[in-house]
Amino acid sequence: MQRLEKQLALIIEIDQLKAVLRQTKVKSAEGRRENSAEHSWQVALLAVLLEEHANEPVNLSRVIKMLLIHDIVEIDAGDTFVYDAAASAEQEEKELAAAKRLFGLLPDDQSDALLSLWLEFESAKTADAKYAKALDRMMPMLLNYNNQGQSWVEHGVSRDQIVAVNGRIADGSEVLWQKMLHVIDYAVEQGWVKA
Amino acid sequence: MQRLEKQLALIIEIDQLKAVLRQTKVKSAEGRRENSAEHSWQVALLAVLLEEHANEPVNLSRVIKMLLIHDIVEIDAGDTFVYDAAASAEQEEKELAAAKRLFGLLPDDQSDALLSLWLEFESAKTADAKYAKALDRMMPMLLNYNNQGQSWVEHGVSRDQIVAVNGRIADGSEVLWQKMLHVIDYAVEQGWVKA
Repeated sequence: MQRLEKQLALIIEIDQLKAVLRQTKVKSAEGRRENSAEHSWQVALLAVLLEEHANEPVNLSRVIKMLLIHDIVEIDAGDTFVYDAAASAEQEEKELAAAKRLFGLLPDDQSDALLSLWLEFESAKTADAKYAKALDRMMPMLLNYNNQGQSWVEHGVSRDQIVAVNGRIADGSEVLWQKMLHVIDYAVEQGWVKA
Repeated sequence: MQRLEKQLALIIEIDQLKAVLRQTKVKSAEGRRENSAEHSWQVALLAVLLEEHANEPVNLSRVIKMLLIHDIVEIDAGDTFVYDAAASAEQEEKELAAAKRLFGLLPDDQSDALLSLWLEFESAKTADAKYAKALDRMMPMLLNYNNQGQSWVEHGVSRDQIVAVNGRIADGSEVLWQKMLHVIDYAVEQGWVKA
């Protein structure tokens, strides 16, 4: 198969990400749950806007690519709620298999490059990945903050849980984590989150 | 207001793009219409995958940024179907006003940079903008091709209309336009598009 055919096969296959639903709801769209495709767009744009707040200089192009592809594995593996610790362990294997299948649709050079970028994001060790991960954790918090704590309230999430799961935002950006701590405190004051 | 507050104001404001519906339907999500947020994600990823087919070398980071922001003006101005020539004229003014309002939420330096990038995309004169525009025109064609010509059939679109509106894909990529011509011919053969 020609290179172009393989590239187009992937773009059509990942159309299914529009049908993977997350726990966060879209305020402007009559309260339906958001899907992972629109989340990926929003968090990629967040990376553009907040670059100056990263702890270390980042390669924005690599960060954006990571965020555009980070969730496509959910097409096979489904979305796991970030506060669902039990599910997260077995999820890893499913996601790796999904990444291999999906990127495997591409020509070998692109397949290798994107799989490697996806693994780098998952490992969260490089400056680019730490910043990207911080944004991915931060985005649903920002939406909850602007939506009466919707998914926190629905799942009875506590302050300790939020801090435990999201504290690693600080690895990508101290500035953004400080801001998120204010968001969490506000959510506790409002009664959206258990103290 | 601090820089961070302004940046977060924009990311929340543009959440509304998830509620702007396009004419193309999402096959995997029980045939609902796709929204401009998920479209923006898909076309940004398409830019990553097809870079090698651009007529001229492009700055991929600029192209992706253009595609992430290109539709946010629809929050104020709405989406116009690409084959609706009458609507397209008055649309321009509304979109410019929307761009100024939305990017105006940001700190001045970022506001100027993103407005300028948005205008560059709209003008479609630079290599980056021509490639980005080509992808934006191509994405709904690819979806129609994989969805029994859905939006072409619904709107009774003809081959001449498709070629007239999308021929400028060739300005960004001759290779991709040749591929799209095959797609159009196939759609005519299938009876999805009037000859």
